[in-house]
Amino acid sequence: MNFKISKSVFYNALQIAARAISSYSPLPAFSGIKIEAKADSLILIGSDSDISIRTVILSSEENSLIIKEMGSIVIESRYIMEIIRKFDAETLEFEVLENSSAKISDDVSEFKINGMRASEYPNIDFAKPATLIDFKSELLKTTIMQTIFATSKSENRPALTGVNFCCNGNELICTATDSYRLARKKVQLADSYHFNITIPSRNLSEVVKTLDLEEDIVFAVSDKKAQFIIGNTIIQSRLIDGSFPETNRLIPQSFSYELEINYSDIIGAIDRASLIKNEGISVIKLSLDEQECILSTRALEVGSSKETLKDAKFSGEHLDISFNGQYVFEALRALNKGKIRFSFCGEMKPFIIQSVEEKDILQLVLPLRTYA
Amino acid sequence: MNFKISKSVFYNALQIAARAISSYSPLPAFSGIKIEAKADSLILIGSDSDISIRTVILSSEENSLIIKEMGSIVIESRYIMEIIRKFDAETLEFEVLENSSAKISDDVSEFKINGMRASEYPNIDFAKPATLIDFKSELLKTTIMQTIFATSKSENRPALTGVNFCCNGNELICTATDSYRLARKKVQLADSYHFNITIPSRNLSEVVKTLDLEEDIVFAVSDKKAQFIIGNTIIQSRLIDGSFPETNRLIPQSFSYELEINYSDIIGAIDRASLIKNEGISVIKLSLDEQECILSTRALEVGSSKETLKDAKFSGEHLDISFNGQYVFEALRALNKGKIRFSFCGEMKPFIIQSVEEKDILQLVLPLRTYA
Repeated sequence: MNFKISKSVFYNALQIAARAISSYSPLPAFSGIKIEAKADSLILIGSDSDISIRTVILSSEENSLIIKEMGSIVIESRYIMEIIRKFDAETLEFEVLENSSAKISDDVSEFKINGMRASEYPNIDFAKPATLIDFKSELLKTTIMQTIFATSKSENRPALTGVNFCCNGNELICTATDSYRLARKKVQLADSYHFNITIPSRNLSEVVKTLDLEEDIVFAVSDKKAQFIIGNTIIQSRLIDGSFPETNRLIPQSFSYELEINYSDIIGAIDRASLIKNEGISVIKLSLDEQECILSTRALEVGSSKETLKDAKFSGEHLDISFNGQYVFEALRALNKGKIRFSFCGEMKPFIIQSVEEKDILQLVLPLRTYA
Repeated sequence: MNFKISKSVFYNALQIAARAISSYSPLPAFSGIKIEAKADSLILIGSDSDISIRTVILSSEENSLIIKEMGSIVIESRYIMEIIRKFDAETLEFEVLENSSAKISDDVSEFKINGMRASEYPNIDFAKPATLIDFKSELLKTTIMQTIFATSKSENRPALTGVNFCCNGNELICTATDSYRLARKKVQLADSYHFNITIPSRNLSEVVKTLDLEEDIVFAVSDKKAQFIIGNTIIQSRLIDGSFPETNRLIPQSFSYELEINYSDIIGAIDRASLIKNEGISVIKLSLDEQECILSTRALEVGSSKETLKDAKFSGEHLDISFNGQYVFEALRALNKGKIRFSFCGEMKPFIIQSVEEKDILQLVLPLRTYA
């Protein structure tokens, strides 16, 4: 194998493939990037078996890619990336030597890096699933960012460690919950589809990092895997086994209390109050009246805080309700702007946070017991 | 105690005092900042007994400091800094309550933070030592940065964990060594002084962070302590006990080989080659001839590299010499620019790196055994 390529194009492609590589992977080959030179393209593959990324560079004048000899090799990702990054020249030459090592050189310097034969790299099937959905990159990014934070960090219930993508017709419903809070986003699709899959949150984070917001993508699903096809890159994710809980019945439909407030006012107040922590958790209490809305905290060791919410409009009887400040903070950040509506059923009932303007995204939080 | 103050002025002063606070301090009071309101000034003190910082804010229109009631309190530094940072208002009110807690408030919100009585805070003597030296901030910063990296990270020989400041007349000599390399800077002083002290490297790092390069400082020394007086701030450091080794005899005076090369060329080549590491250490070999100068590395597991040095001028017989790439990299970075001269005595003898233009700074490195 022997090729010339633009340093920056090669480095960027290595960076994309390397996103799939995990330092915990038990298989030594998976700490490497598989580099394959075809007649007129270079294919880079990274994987940890949970997520696999394949990116292709097609020969063009812009990327200076010239394949002189076809072939393939696997190189430890951290070595090759560090080395490529430090080269001064704009174009590099890459050559596989006899003993499965690679020589990378420019006019000034020359590195020989030990590698592995490509035959030792597991064969990964990148065949495209049958169900293909066109997606705006921006919308996919928003959808993931508005839900992913609510996935569970604990492996106790594996189904909760991913975001559920469920479609029965023209509406895609994306749901994440760790059983203390829930985030749900509805997306209208141009066509009708039927699937119900859960994608690991870590893999969705890597998708977000790779998205080019200028280009649209294809979201391809089967009952075995999901693919995100972003230009010349395929990000392929395994699905989480086990059924995602039925969450519709958790979401209350009628409410006795409502609080409307500006996004910036409420998130600022919660951010400040979150400094008062009890064993790492900030318990925030709202004392709500039609005349006055007060946000307060108390932690035995640290101290307390109190703040009257500006421009808050509350309707209903007096209500005291407490919650984990971090959960509401993250839920608000997903809504991101405008006027926010909190809808409550009672002191110990789950409550809903929504943007007054955008109804497609819903955040639900379970309250905590209010201190005296 | 009760005062009003500009949020940003208060926060900046807390940040300075907090630099002395170490999370390892065994004394609970030392995790706090002592805040003392005098008739027309606010005094903040942070310490871990090794280093103590005292900064004073004098009442002025600019900082909005108005002392309404004198007094003092100690507040956990991480709590007070986080809280002050998150306030929206430009001016804050700070009031000590009866139960040794403090109320901090603006128009919108109010925090009550538990504190400690100031009487529980150790008394720190900030009396000024007799020997006072005026110093340009810029020069002090350069002097510390050009030597501090060569101090020892190991506590085996405590004297080597600091930078030695030695003065016998008009010349101040600052030396750091970890016994594998040495950095020495000479500074000409306007007056004549006599002292020989070693200041812990951690404390010098905090001095560098606090320096305002616009203002000059006073460096005050006794045989007990050193003070850096920076505007209204005093940084006071203990000295390291035990005598600093006599290093003059280690520095060779005559050389058989000389290499001259541009700073940017040699540091670039070493930076690239340092990627090839053997058990975390990059062993770099120079093969020097009057015709050609080659820099190479080899590591069994990773691979090898080779580079012909551009515009290198070598005089002497053929020389192969190897060294720890990190040591030479850091020594070069301290020289920072221009034309660099390496002066060698032989394959296994310490060698010197100096700027051709600036003779006041000298770097010495011990070579490693050259591989075959």
